[in-house]
Amino acid sequence: MADTYDFGLVGLGVMGRNFILNVADNGFSAFGNDLDEEKVSALIKEGGDTAKVNASSDVKTFVQALTTPRKIMLLVPAGKIVDSVIEGLLPHLDEGDIIIDGGNSFYTDTDRREAYLKEKGINFFGAGVSGGAEGARKGPSIMPGGSKEAYQHVKPIFEAVSAKYKGEPCVAYLGPKSAGNYVKMVHNGIEYGLMQLTSEIYDLLKKAGGLTNDELHKTYSDWNEGRLQSFLVEITSEIFDQKDDLTDNDLVDMILDKAKQKGTGKWTSQNAMDLGIPVPTIDIAVSMREISALKDERVKADELYDRPSPKPVNKADFTSKAEQALYFAFIITYAQGMHQLADASKEYGYELELGEIAKIWRAGCIIRAAMLADITEAYQADENLQNLLLSPSFVEKVQSTVDAARELVSYGATNGIPLPGLSNALTYFDAYTSSRLPLNLIQAQRDYFGSHTYERLDRDGIFHTEWER
Amino acid sequence: MADTYDFGLVGLGVMGRNFILNVADNGFSAFGNDLDEEKVSALIKEGGDTAKVNASSDVKTFVQALTTPRKIMLLVPAGKIVDSVIEGLLPHLDEGDIIIDGGNSFYTDTDRREAYLKEKGINFFGAGVSGGAEGARKGPSIMPGGSKEAYQHVKPIFEAVSAKYKGEPCVAYLGPKSAGNYVKMVHNGIEYGLMQLTSEIYDLLKKAGGLTNDELHKTYSDWNEGRLQSFLVEITSEIFDQKDDLTDNDLVDMILDKAKQKGTGKWTSQNAMDLGIPVPTIDIAVSMREISALKDERVKADELYDRPSPKPVNKADFTSKAEQALYFAFIITYAQGMHQLADASKEYGYELELGEIAKIWRAGCIIRAAMLADITEAYQADENLQNLLLSPSFVEKVQSTVDAARELVSYGATNGIPLPGLSNALTYFDAYTSSRLPLNLIQAQRDYFGSHTYERLDRDGIFHTEWER
Repeated sequence: MADTYDFGLVGLGVMGRNFILNVADNGFSAFGNDLDEEKVSALIKEGGDTAKVNASSDVKTFVQALTTPRKIMLLVPAGKIVDSVIEGLLPHLDEGDIIIDGGNSFYTDTDRREAYLKEKGINFFGAGVSGGAEGARKGPSIMPGGSKEAYQHVKPIFEAVSAKYKGEPCVAYLGPKSAGNYVKMVHNGIEYGLMQLTSEIYDLLKKAGGLTNDELHKTYSDWNEGRLQSFLVEITSEIFDQKDDLTDNDLVDMILDKAKQKGTGKWTSQNAMDLGIPVPTIDIAVSMREISALKDERVKADELYDRPSPKPVNKADFTSKAEQALYFAFIITYAQGMHQLADASKEYGYELELGEIAKIWRAGCIIRAAMLADITEAYQADENLQNLLLSPSFVEKVQSTVDAARELVSYGATNGIPLPGLSNALTYFDAYTSSRLPLNLIQAQRDYFGSHTYERLDRDGIFHTEWER
Repeated sequence: MADTYDFGLVGLGVMGRNFILNVADNGFSAFGNDLDEEKVSALIKEGGDTAKVNASSDVKTFVQALTTPRKIMLLVPAGKIVDSVIEGLLPHLDEGDIIIDGGNSFYTDTDRREAYLKEKGINFFGAGVSGGAEGARKGPSIMPGGSKEAYQHVKPIFEAVSAKYKGEPCVAYLGPKSAGNYVKMVHNGIEYGLMQLTSEIYDLLKKAGGLTNDELHKTYSDWNEGRLQSFLVEITSEIFDQKDDLTDNDLVDMILDKAKQKGTGKWTSQNAMDLGIPVPTIDIAVSMREISALKDERVKADELYDRPSPKPVNKADFTSKAEQALYFAFIITYAQGMHQLADASKEYGYELELGEIAKIWRAGCIIRAAMLADITEAYQADENLQNLLLSPSFVEKVQSTVDAARELVSYGATNGIPLPGLSNALTYFDAYTSSRLPLNLIQAQRDYFGSHTYERLDRDGIFHTEWER
């Protein structure tokens, strides 16, 4: 059994098990490892031919089963457990072996681990993997970063197992160091934004348009046939069609309105602030999950305040406007995330090609969407594009849909239906496209109370005024 | 000269110089220290009687001039310089001496320094000081945290030099460890929010209402006579009245629309995300400073997109609505900041009394405002108040002004005038006061693609569904 398996994987949860079976389906042999004997047995049973798929709870047996340079992927929870798995592997590894962290590790942890393992002659990859359990089984989008040379050993396997978009694999070498984890983090930030938008449009269609769950199912399903085609719109449609096992209701109506988070959206927002790149649609998606968690306070507050009754609308027209507004806001959300990636690439030396990133997001991952083909083309046409909104190919798409966003934001504000994601997409657009903003007043205030100085419109230099009081 | 001065201060910039003169005005003798001989001479000259005010560039001379326990305040830029000043002082100090960091140090730095100095028998205080140069001279708001016992030595001086609100000093012992720096950080976050709001209301009144700078001056001045009375509204009024020295224009029109930041607003937002407390009006104020900095991109984007022409409005009515909306959004901004403080107090063991904090913000500091008297009363009436919006005394104030916010947000969205702060205040309000939010859909999506489970409305427990696809 020694030296015969092409690929090793530590962590046989649902993602890990599915990923191994996917590797085996694509002609490579794979060996799994997990402390939990039951998971080991389950994989061996499910894997069939043990020449293709095998597993052991013993680390030494696991490592020795692999051909060199060994390619060992970790699909374990981010945090200290990654370090402890690495320490367990180290005594058994040889120089040139490759460890791939496929979890949502924070990018600075990946940089630290890469430097630590480099000293020991081990190649370390942070590789974001998106697509959930189903993606791991049938083809995820994979975002690896690390040593370009070492990637050549992993490449055939990753290209085989990844999702395909019109035959092209949804994996590419993204850049050095933590480039892979960083890109995956921003992917998840965008995911937060898109999910928030789908949820508030649902709220609006339900409360203002009076759409039933059946109509919502049909609406999102129709949208998924058009320019909004995307994994999240597709599953939203299916969610409205799901019956509850425990009652006679639709399941969506029985689910508590508290949305949890595991931190990648928050990290995206916090890091964007460190970079100085505005991503307000992602920020507000994080805030909304927080507000959702404050259910007890919300119930109390609801009793204290009156709310307008939504004014009746023309259902068909309103639904059409919602499609336009959602399309507009999806574009803005991708634009913000890509903007962050462009800046992070400079700041952290990732040498990212944004066109490549959009390309490997076209299939397999949670934020896959038809519009990613357009985004790919926009960045391929201009690799130095500062912001998607500046791409000539997006001007018409945005200009033709922004009025619907204006109308819905106005409706939501007037009628007490919170549309924070859509509002932030719109105000971001209106601010980003304003050659002149009123922040001259803010800089004046800063100079007034803190002597922080200001620049002028009409001449260069730094100025301070002794303000009359 | 040895052992005769009541108070020492390191860092004789404009804040430090003013603070020392303030101390001397209040009957205490004060000794300054700065590496820069010119600043030392300037202070001695300005201070008059050297028995009251004196200074030296020599650290030993400085320390020996002070009575024990020595009370030494640092007003130097946050960061490594604070550590290096501390190291310079240490060899000359005695057990029981007190160092007070009056800068905007990050709270974890303060915790680290306090622990380090405690081992050496030195008391370390992080004390936020707000009020700008003028406040330092005439009476700032001071927010000290650290050892309660050691504070007794500093208290008489701080109470004497601080701003007074109806005779009450705007300083109070806030809590252990970095409580003082933390409260000052959130103070600054609120400041970011309020400044953003004043700037976008200015934009709206100018573009939609057609108000001239003279009219804006008068409007903000009138508002400052009413419930919006506050330092920021007052100086906004004065800014519109300031003539430019270099041209014939009003100065505000000549200032470049890039607003800088020093990081405290960003820290507030980032830390709120770590706590899981939503502060979207502060978040968007940080984002808007970032967008303002992207002037070149904005100019390019502006050329690519069309914008609606603002529809004419009734000037008087619109201005009245703006006053209501600004009042509403100010309340929401304070509510978010206080909410963060309440949670941070639990998380970090600060034992904050929110009523005390609102109380010492009523005068001296940048966010001083008439409404802080109401906020003080709300927290004094219920020290466990979770959110200002839940205070019975605020319901009417908010309910009677929210409709104006609705109307203006709607106007801004429809007419292409970005009101991101006001929009976020409104959507925060509408979400926080919603017993049911559409985030059940988000949790359904998470369970669909990631098996993240969900809770239900009708029964306890954790559930997962095998979704039909």
